[in-house]
Amino acid sequence: MILTDGLFGDDELARIMGAQGQLAAMLRVEAALARVQGRLGIIPADAAEAIDAAAAALRPDPADLAAATARAGIAAQALVGALKSACGPHGPWAHFGATSQDIQDSALALQLREALLPIEDRLRRLDAALACRARDHAALPIAARTRFQIAAPTTLGAKIAVWRAPLARHLQRLDELRPRLLAVSLFGAAGTGAALAPRMAQTRHALAAELGLTATDTPWHAARDAICETGGWLALVTGSLGKIGADLILLGQSEIGEVTAGSGGGSSTMPQKSNPVAAEALVALARLNAGNCGTLFQAMIHAQERDGSALALEWSCLPDMVIRTGAALRLALNLAETLAPRPEAIAATFAADRGAMLAEAAGFHLARHMPRAEALRIVGAALADLSADGTETLAGALSRRQPGHDWARILAPGDNTGDAEAQARG
Amino acid sequence: MILTDGLFGDDELARIMGAQGQLAAMLRVEAALARVQGRLGIIPADAAEAIDAAAAALRPDPADLAAATARAGIAAQALVGALKSACGPHGPWAHFGATSQDIQDSALALQLREALLPIEDRLRRLDAALACRARDHAALPIAARTRFQIAAPTTLGAKIAVWRAPLARHLQRLDELRPRLLAVSLFGAAGTGAALAPRMAQTRHALAAELGLTATDTPWHAARDAICETGGWLALVTGSLGKIGADLILLGQSEIGEVTAGSGGGSSTMPQKSNPVAAEALVALARLNAGNCGTLFQAMIHAQERDGSALALEWSCLPDMVIRTGAALRLALNLAETLAPRPEAIAATFAADRGAMLAEAAGFHLARHMPRAEALRIVGAALADLSADGTETLAGALSRRQPGHDWARILAPGDNTGDAEAQARG
Amino acid sequence: MILTDGLFGDDELARIMGAQGQLAAMLRVEAALARVQGRLGIIPADAAEAIDAAAAALRPDPADLAAATARAGIAAQALVGALKSACGPHGPWAHFGATSQDIQDSALALQLREALLPIEDRLRRLDAALACRARDHAALPIAARTRFQIAAPTTLGAKIAVWRAPLARHLQRLDELRPRLLAVSLFGAAGTGAALAPRMAQTRHALAAELGLTATDTPWHAARDAICETGGWLALVTGSLGKIGADLILLGQSEIGEVTAGSGGGSSTMPQKSNPVAAEALVALARLNAGNCGTLFQAMIHAQERDGSALALEWSCLPDMVIRTGAALRLALNLAETLAPRPEAIAATFAADRGAMLAEAAGFHLARHMPRAEALRIVGAALADLSADGTETLAGALSRRQPGHDWARILAPGDNTGDAEAQARG
Amino acid sequence: MILTDGLFGDDELARIMGAQGQLAAMLRVEAALARVQGRLGIIPADAAEAIDAAAAALRPDPADLAAATARAGIAAQALVGALKSACGPHGPWAHFGATSQDIQDSALALQLREALLPIEDRLRRLDAALACRARDHAALPIAARTRFQIAAPTTLGAKIAVWRAPLARHLQRLDELRPRLLAVSLFGAAGTGAALAPRMAQTRHALAAELGLTATDTPWHAARDAICETGGWLALVTGSLGKIGADLILLGQSEIGEVTAGSGGGSSTMPQKSNPVAAEALVALARLNAGNCGTLFQAMIHAQERDGSALALEWSCLPDMVIRTGAALRLALNLAETLAPRPEAIAATFAADRGAMLAEAAGFHLARHMPRAEALRIVGAALADLSADGTETLAGALSRRQPGHDWARILAPGDNTGDAEAQARG
Repeated sequence: MILTDGLFGDDELARIMGAQGQLAAMLRVEAALARVQGRLGIIPADAAEAIDAAAAALRPDPADLAAATARAGIAAQALVGALKSACGPHGPWAHFGATSQDIQDSALALQLREALLPIEDRLRRLDAALACRARDHAALPIAARTRFQIAAPTTLGAKIAVWRAPLARHLQRLDELRPRLLAVSLFGAAGTGAALAPRMAQTRHALAAELGLTATDTPWHAARDAICETGGWLALVTGSLGKIGADLILLGQSEIGEVTAGSGGGSSTMPQKSNPVAAEALVALARLNAGNCGTLFQAMIHAQERDGSALALEWSCLPDMVIRTGAALRLALNLAETLAPRPEAIAATFAADRGAMLAEAAGFHLARHMPRAEALRIVGAALADLSADGTETLAGALSRRQPGHDWARILAPGDNTGDAEAQARG
Repeated sequence: MILTDGLFGDDELARIMGAQGQLAAMLRVEAALARVQGRLGIIPADAAEAIDAAAAALRPDPADLAAATARAGIAAQALVGALKSACGPHGPWAHFGATSQDIQDSALALQLREALLPIEDRLRRLDAALACRARDHAALPIAARTRFQIAAPTTLGAKIAVWRAPLARHLQRLDELRPRLLAVSLFGAAGTGAALAPRMAQTRHALAAELGLTATDTPWHAARDAICETGGWLALVTGSLGKIGADLILLGQSEIGEVTAGSGGGSSTMPQKSNPVAAEALVALARLNAGNCGTLFQAMIHAQERDGSALALEWSCLPDMVIRTGAALRLALNLAETLAPRPEAIAATFAADRGAMLAEAAGFHLARHMPRAEALRIVGAALADLSADGTETLAGALSRRQPGHDWARILAPGDNTGDAEAQARG
Repeated sequence: MILTDGLFGDDELARIMGAQGQLAAMLRVEAALARVQGRLGIIPADAAEAIDAAAAALRPDPADLAAATARAGIAAQALVGALKSACGPHGPWAHFGATSQDIQDSALALQLREALLPIEDRLRRLDAALACRARDHAALPIAARTRFQIAAPTTLGAKIAVWRAPLARHLQRLDELRPRLLAVSLFGAAGTGAALAPRMAQTRHALAAELGLTATDTPWHAARDAICETGGWLALVTGSLGKIGADLILLGQSEIGEVTAGSGGGSSTMPQKSNPVAAEALVALARLNAGNCGTLFQAMIHAQERDGSALALEWSCLPDMVIRTGAALRLALNLAETLAPRPEAIAATFAADRGAMLAEAAGFHLARHMPRAEALRIVGAALADLSADGTETLAGALSRRQPGHDWARILAPGDNTGDAEAQARG
Repeated sequence: MILTDGLFGDDELARIMGAQGQLAAMLRVEAALARVQGRLGIIPADAAEAIDAAAAALRPDPADLAAATARAGIAAQALVGALKSACGPHGPWAHFGATSQDIQDSALALQLREALLPIEDRLRRLDAALACRARDHAALPIAARTRFQIAAPTTLGAKIAVWRAPLARHLQRLDELRPRLLAVSLFGAAGTGAALAPRMAQTRHALAAELGLTATDTPWHAARDAICETGGWLALVTGSLGKIGADLILLGQSEIGEVTAGSGGGSSTMPQKSNPVAAEALVALARLNAGNCGTLFQAMIHAQERDGSALALEWSCLPDMVIRTGAALRLALNLAETLAPRPEAIAATFAADRGAMLAEAAGFHLARHMPRAEALRIVGAALADLSADGTETLAGALSRRQPGHDWARILAPGDNTGDAEAQARG
């Protein structure tokens, strides 16, 4: 428990990825293994029943397992001891032929499968909410900013469409990685399945079916690409949300205030403030997951058939990344649902810009009537007029310099947003 | 040029991703844009021809563009200036309606397409070489080590099969990400295509066809998921190779020496040494790419419609990651092609172990004849005999403690490798 | 609570850096601020007393503050609300002139001061324990390994002296950074102290004296170098311990087993195993802190006068780094206290090496009697003899090739360890 | 050469840290070693002279050494070969008793000593330039922004003072780390100095004196804390500059434009733009160095007496970090020298804020005349007036709600900047 868990944490995902969730998932794997082995005649039927029942009933206190885990260096081993005790005379048939990592990795697959459901759900809901917002404001002109400078008009809907576009790709990536990630592990001590040979592969496939996971023919004890790929995916997702956060922070600055979203945080001493707490959190969560991704990938360098140092990197990095992704999606969803433009602030930006952001448009218009170099020269001169006279507009300056064009209409922001509305309507 | 480029660098990929490769790719994009716009009647046909020819002929010296790039903060802009000059009176029609980032990102897609070819090729060749080695040594017993301790027998082929397995998944991931990554960018200053509206989308799709790239409907100027995904993929690849490197380092230690691969580096002062230079390089390249991946993902937080800080992270991280991946694949391929077991060293390990690594097997065998708890007790006592008497073997100790079993045969390593051979034959 | 907290966690440091520790520290700051302001006549004396008493009595449930913290985006603000309520009519005088970050940062200084005490203490105890071990084994010859190959003899004490050397430097660094780090923050909303001007500086210095912290003249709300420096220091410390862990893993491999330390973890299925759980944990904790350091340093880019995104990076990274450092020191101390050589294994390494690691020594000896090039040629030929005949030793080969020298004595490992013993005795 | 070297690179530091600089430094170490050993009678005087001369004359082409470096896995070894050849019959006395890493690490100390000179110089010049700017604008009121919202008035000089404050601490840290970093390495193959025993320590101290470096008693071949500490320092420096960059980006946004610095980059298509290229580069360089720091620290986990994987991390990360720090300082210095406020834009911000940022000040003022709770209620009501009426000011609203105070004077920004001017004058 840290004080900021309400912001950066996520109860649902913390429950799945935490100690209790992990223990429950490991017991589920042990129970399924016993059932499968009972059915296949690998262990006695009554032992299978007893183990299944004991695993279902066991509610170990994580604190009780901590010391044994610290000794063993892997949580599954502490749990296996407790399970065997709980099975009484059938204890020796529990965990039959498996190694601790088999159980812990299979449990991880179950935990991640469960965790990816709310994550996918929130991602879809965020996509839908952003789709609504993009359509709501598909045609609302607003300044595009490139390199922190006003560039040219776009629409608020088009901005939101840019936020949305990666989400569909993230869903596609999730579909692609799931079968690689959600695999059972049952390969035994050295990865060869020797303890149950020649029936280890059969048991593994049956266990996969029992748990609804996929199965591979070679052990992934030491081949951690799917785990790290998933970490990368989580960082991609929070990265996309971090971009939304950064944009909302910038759009919501006191001096700009063109878009509001969520309810701002107050200050302990400045009553007028409304801090972009959720948007800032999106940026922070993105940076944290990005950094953790770099650390997690160090776990790819997994020595020999099992490397306790490398595994520990995963155990530390991955659950946090899952929880942060859940938190970021929850925050982003709330922002998406409450996002609203402040038209008067948007109008004020256009007014203050005095048409300078239409300089490119002016140039393209003029170039239809004269050489492009000449067109650009005239626009440049008109821009200089704006600098010289703080009340001049680009339309005004061009009307003087290049009369005979309806510059106010030509440079109307709403007529210079290209495909923005189409992008927004997606 | 740094002194270690021969080891950690890669000429082919450095050429593609370096200054010259980038300039060539950007000129190719500008030329294709001009041709397409000429065909579509968006720019005059003679201008299109002139730009195409000028782009083909232009060989700018990177040094000449450095100052302009430093001023503009983006290389494409410096190049566009040079190209326009080279086009003479047609200059204003070059780069028509595009923004610098359109050109640079489209060029990046071309560069990455080109770079991914040798990378994929080497990955396939590495996979094939490892497949050969796995089959060559499919049935050769060797100790599996878990947590840096001898665990139980496996085969050398099965070890290699574990190295191989992720490569097929990497190839699958590459197929999946390519269409997302290899996309043209042509959206104009604010991402709306306003400069060419309503014909920007048409031009973009034609340009995509011209260059053999895909096209998206929304701009990816500020949605960098495909770039970062690719960085993640590169780090996954080098991570898998880093695992091979770590294993070869450990298998090749003076005291173990069970496997040789490549030619070791000599010492400046110790004539007997043969350092695992290439294997160490694989580990280093993996850690570097992992770390860079964490930095690259910070670029996901890309502010507004274009963020020069975020782009610069990509420009710095991604080319290095591509080059390192090429280097790691080249080194790994050489190691895979020259990998050979040293049977006498492998035999020495089995001899020194005195059968302790068959303790699990002994327990499983005995448990077929008595309760598992009793079986494990007997095996434990036999292991204690080994500790007490430095010449005792597990087979010997069990023959005394539990006669009537052919322990030498039962505990023969080659009969206790489970599915290892099948894994190796894949 | 996660299952591996007993290994990778640390109760004492988790208490200091956790929610309760943070709340207690923040209340201590608010109480001290009130006392100081009461003494200086900035707030009424009875308000000061009431706030002091309320802060001392307040025991907020972190869970109760979570929602308010999530809204405010900073824990201090939620606590200030609770404190003001608890002060009844004096509430408005609490937190007088301060901003939330003042309180949270000052509390962080108190927490870090408290956390650095056990860290320093453990570091000193580790240094002392390693000094003992280095002296115990100052003259015990053992193989040095460079690039994972046996290089030449050293002593176990000299190996340990290399582990020790950075610890003294870390203590020196700690002395240097403490005054930079352990500073009070009291600068008010905009960092100018305007709310209490012209008495803010006076209040700040008095508060610093009251809390035993240093004070700066400019606000460090947005200048986070001391925080990040401290994160770097923590990563340096765990890095040095990670090196010890890596060495112990390698020295403790089944095939080498020259040094034991701590009690190994058992396997759930392989009864003969003794896993280097603590040593692996040292490596993992080092890699995690290294990675976190890279993420924490992103918080240096702290926008304007206060940046909630940047602060959140610190809040997430730093406490974990402190706790991991405490855990690593605890584990390393246990390893140092229990470290013991296995002389028979060390002897076996020398025997198996057959003197090859003395090749450099042989060359230097011969070069006193002939040109160095010739000496190196002879040694090279003798090494070839070892390769050709698996029972030959370097002393034997040289006795044949270059008789007239007492090669067995000349190449005695214990006579070829240079300054190793002196290094070990420090 | 990459196209952005003019922006993110630095010629002076690239020269020192690059291949040529490294070769020159290594030759300098070999020459000094020969001279020292000649003086001490460890090698023949004529050999010493010949080696010194050969090292001074040798100008190896890095390209010629690349292949040998790739084989050896360490650049020094390739160079030693070339040097020995160049010394003719004296060749065997070159590099006498040293190991490759001794030479490369001692050379690194020389390179870093040289590199830290311009870095320190630029840091001091930046500090001086910022001191001037802080004094120039010590009393110029400007809005402080916390969490991306206008908070309260400060002065531009106080903002700059916050940028400056860490620089003095960085200089202090540099003084502290230099003696740890700038150490000679001369410990021989196994770190024991056995090749020259009992005269290795004497030689090492003499070499240190010859090169102006410090010396340690234990080898730092595998204790890399000073290297990583230096990387951390570089990241701290660029982090502080990244904060300046972030602030300049935000202050320079089109809608704010309160401060200009440097000359903005133009756009390839938008003639009105002035991009904050240098400020963005500062942010990027900070993020790159932060990330690299996390990767570099992985090199602390340096196995045994020499670890080629860990060394390679340093070789890749550290030179880039040095160069980036040089680049960032160069860019920051230019920004500091050209920084200028735009008073009309600053005034516009105050006007648009309508006094809301003085809400805290109003509350503190009123609280001198009534209970604080009542004061805050009144200020809250006045702020609501501003929201209701877009032309109302806080002074106006309070004049109506709480007449009898000279609200325009009380809320004058320039009278509400507390210690800002004092901070700026430092």
